[in-house]
Amino acid sequence: MSAATRAEAAALDAADPLAHHRAAFDLPDVIYLDGNSLGPLTRAARERVATVVGEEWGEGLIRSWNTAGWVDLPTRVAAKIAPLIGAAPRDVIVTDSTSVNLFKVLSAALSEALPGRRTILSEPGNFPTDLYIAEGVAAGEGAALALSDDPLAALDESVAVLMLTEVDYRTGRRHDMARVTAAAHRVGALTVWDLAHSAGALPVDLAGAGADFAVGCGYKYLNGGPGAPAFLYVAPQHQDATQPLSGWFGHAAPFAFEPAYQPAAGIERFLTGTPSVIAMSALDAALDVFADVDLTAVAAKSAALADLMIARVDALCGDHLTLASPRSAATRGSQVSFRHPSGYPVMQALIAAGVIGDFRAPDILRFGFTPLYTRFVDVFDAVDILADILAARRWDAPQFHRRAAVT
Amino acid sequence: MSAATRAEAAALDAADPLAHHRAAFDLPDVIYLDGNSLGPLTRAARERVATVVGEEWGEGLIRSWNTAGWVDLPTRVAAKIAPLIGAAPRDVIVTDSTSVNLFKVLSAALSEALPGRRTILSEPGNFPTDLYIAEGVAAGEGAALALSDDPLAALDESVAVLMLTEVDYRTGRRHDMARVTAAAHRVGALTVWDLAHSAGALPVDLAGAGADFAVGCGYKYLNGGPGAPAFLYVAPQHQDATQPLSGWFGHAAPFAFEPAYQPAAGIERFLTGTPSVIAMSALDAALDVFADVDLTAVAAKSAALADLMIARVDALCGDHLTLASPRSAATRGSQVSFRHPSGYPVMQALIAAGVIGDFRAPDILRFGFTPLYTRFVDVFDAVDILADILAARRWDAPQFHRRAAVT
Repeated sequence: MSAATRAEAAALDAADPLAHHRAAFDLPDVIYLDGNSLGPLTRAARERVATVVGEEWGEGLIRSWNTAGWVDLPTRVAAKIAPLIGAAPRDVIVTDSTSVNLFKVLSAALSEALPGRRTILSEPGNFPTDLYIAEGVAAGEGAALALSDDPLAALDESVAVLMLTEVDYRTGRRHDMARVTAAAHRVGALTVWDLAHSAGALPVDLAGAGADFAVGCGYKYLNGGPGAPAFLYVAPQHQDATQPLSGWFGHAAPFAFEPAYQPAAGIERFLTGTPSVIAMSALDAALDVFADVDLTAVAAKSAALADLMIARVDALCGDHLTLASPRSAATRGSQVSFRHPSGYPVMQALIAAGVIGDFRAPDILRFGFTPLYTRFVDVFDAVDILADILAARRWDAPQFHRRAAVT
Repeated sequence: MSAATRAEAAALDAADPLAHHRAAFDLPDVIYLDGNSLGPLTRAARERVATVVGEEWGEGLIRSWNTAGWVDLPTRVAAKIAPLIGAAPRDVIVTDSTSVNLFKVLSAALSEALPGRRTILSEPGNFPTDLYIAEGVAAGEGAALALSDDPLAALDESVAVLMLTEVDYRTGRRHDMARVTAAAHRVGALTVWDLAHSAGALPVDLAGAGADFAVGCGYKYLNGGPGAPAFLYVAPQHQDATQPLSGWFGHAAPFAFEPAYQPAAGIERFLTGTPSVIAMSALDAALDVFADVDLTAVAAKSAALADLMIARVDALCGDHLTLASPRSAATRGSQVSFRHPSGYPVMQALIAAGVIGDFRAPDILRFGFTPLYTRFVDVFDAVDILADILAARRWDAPQFHRRAAVT
C-alpha cells in the first residue's frame, strides 16, 4: 500500500478503519512522528487527571485510597496492558520506572537461573539504561554482562539470562521473540524482554513465546504521559522468585505494619513503594483508547505508513538519506530511521518546520508511527517538508546546530 | 498556649501569624488532621498540573523536555526541599519513591562503611517499608539487619549503618538527630535518616547534625500529592559512592547514549529512570507554599496545637484514651497519638463525623498537625466530636468495624 500523490494518501486515510481513533487525542497543529518517545495527550487522560487532582485528592483526601480505588491501580492498569502484550492480567504489574523494574526482574531472573550461571547476555546496541542497569545488577550479584552484536550466536550454556529489547530504539529492527526465546531455552538460559518500543505498537505474545520476564514503558506507545509509570511481566513459574526492592507495597499484608518482610503471593511482590497515583491514573485513562483496538490492524497500518515513508524518501531524498531500518515490515518495529551525517541539525530544522521526529546519536533521524492518530497525509507531507529542508540545506543554520540538553 | 473555650481557640487563630497560608490550600469541609499521611491539594499544584498536562504535554509534546525544563525537575524541586532539611541544594535530589531511594542510599552507605562492618542497626518500630528494604539490601550485600528498642545503647563497633526514622510514625517520638548521629560516628557507624514525618513539619538540620544519608517523602507534610516522588540526601563526602540502581538519568551524559555506565559526578548519580514529570510538577508547585515560611514558627504552632489537643483530651476523654506520644514537644514530632482498645472503629466513626485522622495497628489513633492550614478551632472542635463519639459509644456500630483495604 503506497501513495504517489497527496490525493492517494488522503484516499488511504478515508478508507482507514482506525481513523476514528484520532479524535481521542488532543493533538496540536504539528505532524507528530515521535509517539515512540512520548505519546500524546488523550482527552481521557486530561479529564482523568483533573478528576484525580480536584476530586479524589482535593475532596477525598486520604479516604480516596479506598473510595477511589487508588490502592488497586497497579493491578487495574496492568489488566489493561496485559492483552496488549499477550499476558494474563495476574502476570503483569504497573509500578516504578522501566529502569527500576528491570533491576527487579533481572535480579529475579538471576535467582531463577540454572546453578552456577552468572552471565547476562545482551547487545551493545540495546537501550543504554538497560545495559547500565544490567551492569548494576551484575556488580551486586557477582555476575557478568556480556555483549554481542549477534546474541543468538553467542548463546551458550554459560548464559544465565538473555536480556534484549524486542525493537531496537535506533534502527527499529525487531527480534523474533518466539524464536529467540526458544533458542535461549534450548541452552538453559532465561529471557528478559524490554517492550519499550513494542507494547501498544505491535501484537506481542509473551505467554505464547514462553518469555520469562519483561519490562515496558508507559509513556511511549501507551500514551501515559511524561515519565509515566512502567510495567513488568513475570511468567507464572517465576513468581516465587525474590526481588531485592522489597518495599511495603510488595508485602503480603502492607497495612498490617509487620516488622518482617513477607512477600505477596503473586505478581504484587514486584511492587515496592507507594504508587504514583496521579501519574498512574493518567496512564489508566490513556489505555482506554486500546479497549476495542485490534493490534494486528495497528501493525498493518504501521507497516503501510512506514512503507509510504520509505517510498517517498527514496523518491525525494535518496541523495541525502540512507535507510537505517529494515526494509521489510516483517523484521521492523513501528518506526523508520534514516542516517544523515548532519542528523542533529536536520532534525532541528524539521521540528522547526512542524514535523516532530527524534535525533539519535550519532546520525539517526527517527520517525515513529502511531496508527491510532498518524495519517497517511501526515507521512506524505512530512517527507515533502524534509525533502525541501534537505534540498535547500535549510538545516545548515546556526540555530539548528545548537545542542539542547535533551536530544 | 492553650484554650479552655472555643472563643479562646478562635482568639489564638486570630493572632496566628501563619493563618494566611490556609488560603493556599484547596480544603474540603472536614477537619483534616491527616496531612502526615497525605498532604492536601494546594491551589498552586492544581493549576500547575493542569498546565503541565494541557500545555506542556498536550501542546509541547516531546519538546517540553527542553522548553518546559522537565529535564531539570529533579534538581529544581530538590532546591526547594533543601532549605527545609538543612541541606545544600547540590546534596539533594528528587526521584522515585522513599522505598526505592532508601535502597539506593542504604546500599551506598554500606559501600562507604568501615571495612568489615556489615550490620545495619534499626528499631523494630521503624516504619515497616524501611525495615523491609533494609532486609532486601542486607540479603543482597551479605549484611545483617539488627533491631533494638534502644538503638543508642546497641551502637557498637560492629555497626556499619544506623538507620532511623527521625519521628516515629505511630507515637510521634522524635530522635535527637544531632546527638544520635554523633553517637553513631563515635563508634565509626554511618547514619541513614528517614525524614518522612519531619520534612516540612519541623526544622531539620542534616548538615548541622553531620548526617550521612537521608530519604524523605513528598506526599506528607510537603503536600506533593498521592504517591508523589520522594527525595534523598547524600552528604558531600559520600557522593562518590556507587548505588546499584544505575539507570540512564544517573549517567554523566544521559543523552550521549553510551553503552557503558559512567555515573554523574554529583548527586545526580542517585537518579535512575525517567522522572515522573506530572507528579514531580505537582510537588514542585506545592513546595512554593514554603517559600517564605519559617519552620521554627511552624514547629512552635504545631507544639501549641498538639498541647491543646492533649489538654482537651485530658479534660474530655481521659477515661477512654491513653496518650501514646511524648507529652513534651521537645521530643515529639508534629503529631499526637492516643491508644484505644477499639481504635479502628473509633477512627472510622470520627472520620464519618468529619474529623479525619489515622488508625495505626494495633490501637493507635493518630492526629497530625500541619500549621499552615490547621487552626486551633479545628483541634478544639475535633476533640469535642471525639469526646461525644466515645461517651456515647457511637463507634460501636457495625459499619465502623468493617475493615477497608487501606487503613
